[in-house]
Amino acid sequence: MDKNLSLLQETELFRGLSEDQVRKIFAIGRKVDFPAAATIMTEGEIGDTMYIIWAGTVEVVKTLVLAGVEEEEGLEKNKVFTRLGAEQHAVFGEIALLEEAKRTATIRAITDVSLYEIRKDAFLRLAGEDPALGYRIMYNLARIVSARLRKADEDTIKLTTALSLILKETAG
Amino acid sequence: MDKNLSLLQETELFRGLSEDQVRKIFAIGRKVDFPAAATIMTEGEIGDTMYIIWAGTVEVVKTLVLAGVEEEEGLEKNKVFTRLGAEQHAVFGEIALLEEAKRTATIRAITDVSLYEIRKDAFLRLAGEDPALGYRIMYNLARIVSARLRKADEDTIKLTTALSLILKETAG
Repeated sequence: MDKNLSLLQETELFRGLSEDQVRKIFAIGRKVDFPAAATIMTEGEIGDTMYIIWAGTVEVVKTLVLAGVEEEEGLEKNKVFTRLGAEQHAVFGEIALLEEAKRTATIRAITDVSLYEIRKDAFLRLAGEDPALGYRIMYNLARIVSARLRKADEDTIKLTTALSLILKETAG
Repeated sequence: MDKNLSLLQETELFRGLSEDQVRKIFAIGRKVDFPAAATIMTEGEIGDTMYIIWAGTVEVVKTLVLAGVEEEEGLEKNKVFTRLGAEQHAVFGEIALLEEAKRTATIRAITDVSLYEIRKDAFLRLAGEDPALGYRIMYNLARIVSARLRKADEDTIKLTTALSLILKETAG
């Protein structure tokens, strides 16, 4: 199998697909390039595309403070930064396959990057034509989102613990 | 269609299934009853079953403070409680369809309850036999988990904002 196809097959989202099914996925997408420092997607905007990192590194920037409060209280530095690279076969924006949802983070190119872009409508058409492919990808996607939810729940517990301890201290 | 089947079809997880597909789902599950005050599942335990509420009301209890800290600091009251009833066609434990994951909440019967139980292995077998059914359910499940993740992300932003403001205040 060609190197591009095997990269696609190694991403978590496409795990377990046959070579023939990976070829179908490959056929509905297109390669897009961004120069270093370009903004690929913006937190809060509606999107209908998902991306797989082909080459290069991107930065994921997520706001951690409510928009109004951020400006008012001078808390604009409360953001988290994560890097994703091609070696992790990282996928982002995949929630767009499920619904018209706002992007949950801003993605910026750190180096020149090559991405593989898949549009929601093309994906849903393909999944309707090949339900076994649709099932496998949705199963993978549900697992990915579920793992993120578990992580978010753990974060909530840590934050609530910290808040409880601080409030107990200031009250006592 | 029979009343039980139409209830099944109205749950978010089974939305969009044909009557024939809902019959298949119905055929792999069983009805289970719990008396009021019974514990149906326990936070932290591994489970391989999911439930749909048929009749009665349950309470969802989630710990909000880290286990060790909870006892040490007397913060044992930091739990959230939510009620789910048959009128919402509520589904719980559905993450068990995806992986061997720990239950993320304790579920207790408030009244006598009747539940419809589906086991992971039976579900995966059925989804393999009927990929169009598997695709639709996994698509619904991914959307449900994705909506929860969005809610969890919003909670994280609120908690981080509160923490940032308190820390700023105590520092200044």
